[in-house]
Amino acid sequence: MTDNPQVSDKMQQLLDLAAEIDDLGHIQALMGWDQQVYMPPNGAEERGLQSAALGKIVHEKFTSDEVGQLIADLEEEVGDLNAETDEARSVKVAKRAYEKQTKVPLPMLMERIKATTMAHEAWVEAKTKSDFSIFQPHLEKIVDLTKQYADLFKPYDHVYDPLLDNFEPGMKTADVKKIFEELRPQQVTLLQAIAEKEAPDNSFLKQYYPEADQERFGRYVISQFGYDFKRGRLDVTAHPFTTSFGQGDVRITTRYLKDDAGSALFSTMHEAGHAMYEQGVPPKYRRHPLSGAASLAIHESQSRLWENLVGRSKEFWTFFYPSLQMLVPQYLGDVSLETFYRGINRVEPSMIRVEADEATYNMHIMLRLEIEIGLMEGTVEVKDLPEIWNTNMREYLGITPPNDAQGVLQDVHWSSGLIGYFPTYALGNLASVQLWDKLLEENPNVPDEIAKGNFETVLGWMRENVHQYGVKFEPQEIMLKATGSKITPEPYMAYLQKKYGEIYDL
Amino acid sequence: MTDNPQVSDKMQQLLDLAAEIDDLGHIQALMGWDQQVYMPPNGAEERGLQSAALGKIVHEKFTSDEVGQLIADLEEEVGDLNAETDEARSVKVAKRAYEKQTKVPLPMLMERIKATTMAHEAWVEAKTKSDFSIFQPHLEKIVDLTKQYADLFKPYDHVYDPLLDNFEPGMKTADVKKIFEELRPQQVTLLQAIAEKEAPDNSFLKQYYPEADQERFGRYVISQFGYDFKRGRLDVTAHPFTTSFGQGDVRITTRYLKDDAGSALFSTMHEAGHAMYEQGVPPKYRRHPLSGAASLAIHESQSRLWENLVGRSKEFWTFFYPSLQMLVPQYLGDVSLETFYRGINRVEPSMIRVEADEATYNMHIMLRLEIEIGLMEGTVEVKDLPEIWNTNMREYLGITPPNDAQGVLQDVHWSSGLIGYFPTYALGNLASVQLWDKLLEENPNVPDEIAKGNFETVLGWMRENVHQYGVKFEPQEIMLKATGSKITPEPYMAYLQKKYGEIYDL
Repeated sequence: MTDNPQVSDKMQQLLDLAAEIDDLGHIQALMGWDQQVYMPPNGAEERGLQSAALGKIVHEKFTSDEVGQLIADLEEEVGDLNAETDEARSVKVAKRAYEKQTKVPLPMLMERIKATTMAHEAWVEAKTKSDFSIFQPHLEKIVDLTKQYADLFKPYDHVYDPLLDNFEPGMKTADVKKIFEELRPQQVTLLQAIAEKEAPDNSFLKQYYPEADQERFGRYVISQFGYDFKRGRLDVTAHPFTTSFGQGDVRITTRYLKDDAGSALFSTMHEAGHAMYEQGVPPKYRRHPLSGAASLAIHESQSRLWENLVGRSKEFWTFFYPSLQMLVPQYLGDVSLETFYRGINRVEPSMIRVEADEATYNMHIMLRLEIEIGLMEGTVEVKDLPEIWNTNMREYLGITPPNDAQGVLQDVHWSSGLIGYFPTYALGNLASVQLWDKLLEENPNVPDEIAKGNFETVLGWMRENVHQYGVKFEPQEIMLKATGSKITPEPYMAYLQKKYGEIYDL
Repeated sequence: MTDNPQVSDKMQQLLDLAAEIDDLGHIQALMGWDQQVYMPPNGAEERGLQSAALGKIVHEKFTSDEVGQLIADLEEEVGDLNAETDEARSVKVAKRAYEKQTKVPLPMLMERIKATTMAHEAWVEAKTKSDFSIFQPHLEKIVDLTKQYADLFKPYDHVYDPLLDNFEPGMKTADVKKIFEELRPQQVTLLQAIAEKEAPDNSFLKQYYPEADQERFGRYVISQFGYDFKRGRLDVTAHPFTTSFGQGDVRITTRYLKDDAGSALFSTMHEAGHAMYEQGVPPKYRRHPLSGAASLAIHESQSRLWENLVGRSKEFWTFFYPSLQMLVPQYLGDVSLETFYRGINRVEPSMIRVEADEATYNMHIMLRLEIEIGLMEGTVEVKDLPEIWNTNMREYLGITPPNDAQGVLQDVHWSSGLIGYFPTYALGNLASVQLWDKLLEENPNVPDEIAKGNFETVLGWMRENVHQYGVKFEPQEIMLKATGSKITPEPYMAYLQKKYGEIYDL
């Protein structure tokens, strides 16, 4: 709330409001983090009430008529909201958020919160019992409410557009469909070719490495990447995630599995990628309308880049493998670098996205996107989902879930009402390779640097071409600026074909 | 916010307001806990801004004219605010808080926050350099502001009354002075008698017990006490404390020292005593005007009771000593129970209250109370504090601090503007023995039960006679109800004389 003589009174009001909303949002993030990391079981009920109390305050602060008037006045003051100034874009971002939030009538919002709370409980029970019928009426309710929500944003090109736009500003369903239609046959062809080859051994990873060693190695790696522990920390949760309480405090979590040492290692790199993005937004955007990240796909481009393009590369392991061997000689002492590299890149259709390798990952997303679009268009009915799910799993990945718990009930998103979210995972993969290709084109020495444990060029380039913008630009604007192209599937397919062509001798 | 048909509309408004204030207060507590336990160093600046943002909202919510009118209306509706109904006392408590908070002009509040923030930084530097002159102007400012604050509450019997009342509702400076004047000569006499005797050996405690063993034993003991880990957790901080995020989440912290195994053990019991009080407030007071604890002295009566009257008793160690010996045979294998018991009760004048034994503890409080009263009365000047401190230490405890860092600069309270707080530590000691005596009078079997590791009667009695009231009654009302007497020094002195008479053969 430092007054800047260069901005108008109204703009200063917006900056002050954004600072307060930012503060309160980061407090909400802390409450969520603590709930997942350290809260004792009986703390949940009051935490829920506290979270609702703060949420109500934030909602009221931001949706008042005064705020609407302020934004309208500023729009007039600023003129073209697409001008590439911080002022114009701040007003654009605020206007977008204000319109989204005020469009939803409070009763509908309350009904949605109630429905998802109940749906979440039902989903937990349904998954435990592997009984979709328990979840079905709740998901039907959510789909119904989601359609009502989308209709608030008429006219639209596609009923799925308003949902997608919540996670990926400016992206249209038609864009995503086109990308996926291009991608799918090529991915299927690649997977078929791989399936005919012998899979590399990865049994050395499917072991319980001592947790302290896993943690030590993970911390070492992400410190080398540039994750700043003075502005963050690493904890353990059931499901890894990244959260931010401000530019000075961006935390990540991971989990250590008893039967798979790769899980924590790659998830730690993944979350560090997310966190370095948040840590890399410039100080001028602290407590500012433009603070934060451009979209989920851009976020995922960063996490997947560090996890896969860096973390599953030969160059990375050229440098780091000796350290890992030193830590766990009992598992890796007589495993060669080449064997290790091929093992961590083994392609293996799996039941769930979070465990998928690079080659099968997008298939999980496409499967779910088609179902979501069908549900919203009304061409797919909730009651048919278990069968559709299993049919598509066979078609896309050649495997059939043994039960609905591992199939259609596998994860939490739908029970939370998160429809429109999934495509961003795949878009993030595509964007990560586009950014990577451009980085290498401009800095051909990067592979050599990585092989020496030096990540400064990589992180510096991401800071310069992605992180520095905060939410100033929409995701496709960032991609255009950084790579000269919007998100497109070709580079990703070329990357997969080259990488797996070598590993599988295709 | 469940509507209760038995309460009036206005009372329901108060209950709703209290629930919201309670929610937001618990969120503030979470932010404070995280800051001390897990926050990375660079998170501090934004955390401070977030905390201020939320504090402002809480302040505005509670000090509005509407709230004042609501309380006035309710006062009329309820009639006698001292009636022993929840309604009357809820209004009384709300009125008290409202009047305190609205009496302070916002500029004065802001100036105080600024002054204490700067004073804290100066104190850290002054303590590091052991140079009081760095802290002196800041403390002068705080004393000045504190006098201005007290004057807002004129007329008062004594300028220290409004300060004391913030921590100990209803307690007067005259009461405290009278208690301490009775106490001091008797404590001095006792200490002189002890000083002539040989001190028991406690070298077996002044060791580094493996941290995992210290923690395991501490958790075991407080679980047996009745601290509910499903509604709490134990973490490590530089300074042990208890904090509550609601009845379902009351957390404690401790610290493990390298040269003193007793520190963590007794501080864990101490904080568990605080926490069991918070956990023991009945569910009907959850998110209610009467939620929480009656006062700091009543709080301290609970913590000191579990730490000392239970935790330093022969009966307690009759049951627990074998377990501790089993954990650390390298230190305790050939130390007898009798030797151990005498060792943990060794009287030894120390530089600082937090390390003091039961016999010297109150001397630290008296020393500081006299200085605080003198500062407020204007008979003591800040610049003379180092000399006064050292003189009084010699007089009361027979030792001279080697430097100001260990003397007048030893702890944080004054830099935070906490004047009026210290007497509650001593009052808590006195109250703990009064409660204990009454408990034993009604339940003579308690020592036998403790010797069997059974604490149900102790905790049940505290639940019934202290915890169940929340903040419904003022501390002296609670003491009267529970023991038939206000806080008084005789039982405490009798306890000390009997205990140390036996240990030191006086």
